[in-house]
Amino acid sequence: MNNYRLVVSYDGTRYKGWQRLSDEDMTIQGKIEDVLSKFLGTEMKIVGSSRTDAGVHAHRQIANFTTEEDKTVDEVAHYLNTYLPEDIRIKKVDKVDENFHARFNAVEKEYVYKIYNTRVMDPFQRKYAMHIIKELEVDSMRYAADEFLGEHDFTSFTNAKSKKKSMVREIKSIDIKENGPLIEIKIIGNGFLHNMVRKIVGTLIEVGQGKKLPVDVPKIFEAKDSKMAGVTAQAQGLFLNKIKF
Amino acid sequence: MNNYRLVVSYDGTRYKGWQRLSDEDMTIQGKIEDVLSKFLGTEMKIVGSSRTDAGVHAHRQIANFTTEEDKTVDEVAHYLNTYLPEDIRIKKVDKVDENFHARFNAVEKEYVYKIYNTRVMDPFQRKYAMHIIKELEVDSMRYAADEFLGEHDFTSFTNAKSKKKSMVREIKSIDIKENGPLIEIKIIGNGFLHNMVRKIVGTLIEVGQGKKLPVDVPKIFEAKDSKMAGVTAQAQGLFLNKIKF
Repeated sequence: MNNYRLVVSYDGTRYKGWQRLSDEDMTIQGKIEDVLSKFLGTEMKIVGSSRTDAGVHAHRQIANFTTEEDKTVDEVAHYLNTYLPEDIRIKKVDKVDENFHARFNAVEKEYVYKIYNTRVMDPFQRKYAMHIIKELEVDSMRYAADEFLGEHDFTSFTNAKSKKKSMVREIKSIDIKENGPLIEIKIIGNGFLHNMVRKIVGTLIEVGQGKKLPVDVPKIFEAKDSKMAGVTAQAQGLFLNKIKF
Repeated sequence: MNNYRLVVSYDGTRYKGWQRLSDEDMTIQGKIEDVLSKFLGTEMKIVGSSRTDAGVHAHRQIANFTTEEDKTVDEVAHYLNTYLPEDIRIKKVDKVDENFHARFNAVEKEYVYKIYNTRVMDPFQRKYAMHIIKELEVDSMRYAADEFLGEHDFTSFTNAKSKKKSMVREIKSIDIKENGPLIEIKIIGNGFLHNMVRKIVGTLIEVGQGKKLPVDVPKIFEAKDSKMAGVTAQAQGLFLNKIKF
């Protein structure tokens, strides 16, 4: 059995997210599986590290698939990049250990959220950042970001319905970088619940707008109620950056 | 008479260029004139500094228009940004001297051409850079770039048909910056003939590919024949960056 790992980069604008839904829905997993199935002559399934939502982008999503066929990594990369649309690119293909699993073996994920904080939006950022007109207080956002570090129960920062699974996750770092009007929030953690990055960012934005204070964050954790958190920040500003195994 | 100067930023992907052609064609000038005409209740014309081609982008194109109406700069900016599509943004509006003319008063223009030099294209660069797979010899390109500096007859570097007007232009600087796979060629000059930047870049690319040598550039100038120059580089990599008056 051969196990192939793919590094996938995509502009999520046109897609309903990573995860295959019906055959008609535009999804990144669906597109790759369709091309791969033609290549290998049998219905293929791939596993992605992260189920990015509709409109979310990725620089280095990781996926893997297994097959009895013995293709070179160049053959796999070339076929996929020839038949996939231009907004999905396979940056790298490697043969990996038979036991490698893109989802179960991921131990750390890095996301970046981009905000364009200026009166008039830059047309080149319109699909790749959230536009906020009023100047954000970035230092307050940094204080609030520190409140997220470490292990917490993130029930208040997810739209996930299931109460069965653990809501505890560990945030390893949140860095907020300013470059002119562009604010980049880099979040590294051991795993993320559904919408968790976007609800953390939404909360940080409300702190930057003065609607919430950094000291409100511990109270939101305690409440275990997603209505207490900030809004879910727009999908278009979110990029899956990299994944560690 | 009021004279308004606009700083215009646009993603040129969807457009047939700056200059208004017929009423049906998608042009940036046409879009702005249509919205401005509705705003002021009469058919308006605007003048742009540079007639960028189909698919070419602009960070800071400059335009101006005159009117008897006395609107505040905020009113003009707000109306235009409300009714223009998101890929055209008015970054700034100023009232300027009655004699200011965006085309005739321009004394220096800066363009940037972006090349993404790597095996697999980045999906986020697909509309904003030219993809070249084979590694370019950037140092050779820099030697060739030096051959363009100063005043020359650019007949070999334009597709312009007219032989009436002067083909002499002055290139003030060409800087080539590398940032990972991204190569940015910044060209500053007192003015540019039709397709001149893209033919200079096309020639530099052929030098980078070893198809031409830096010493070929003076021979191309002498030949006064556009077939001697390199190909016209793709529109999507070109950005009008700024204009001096």
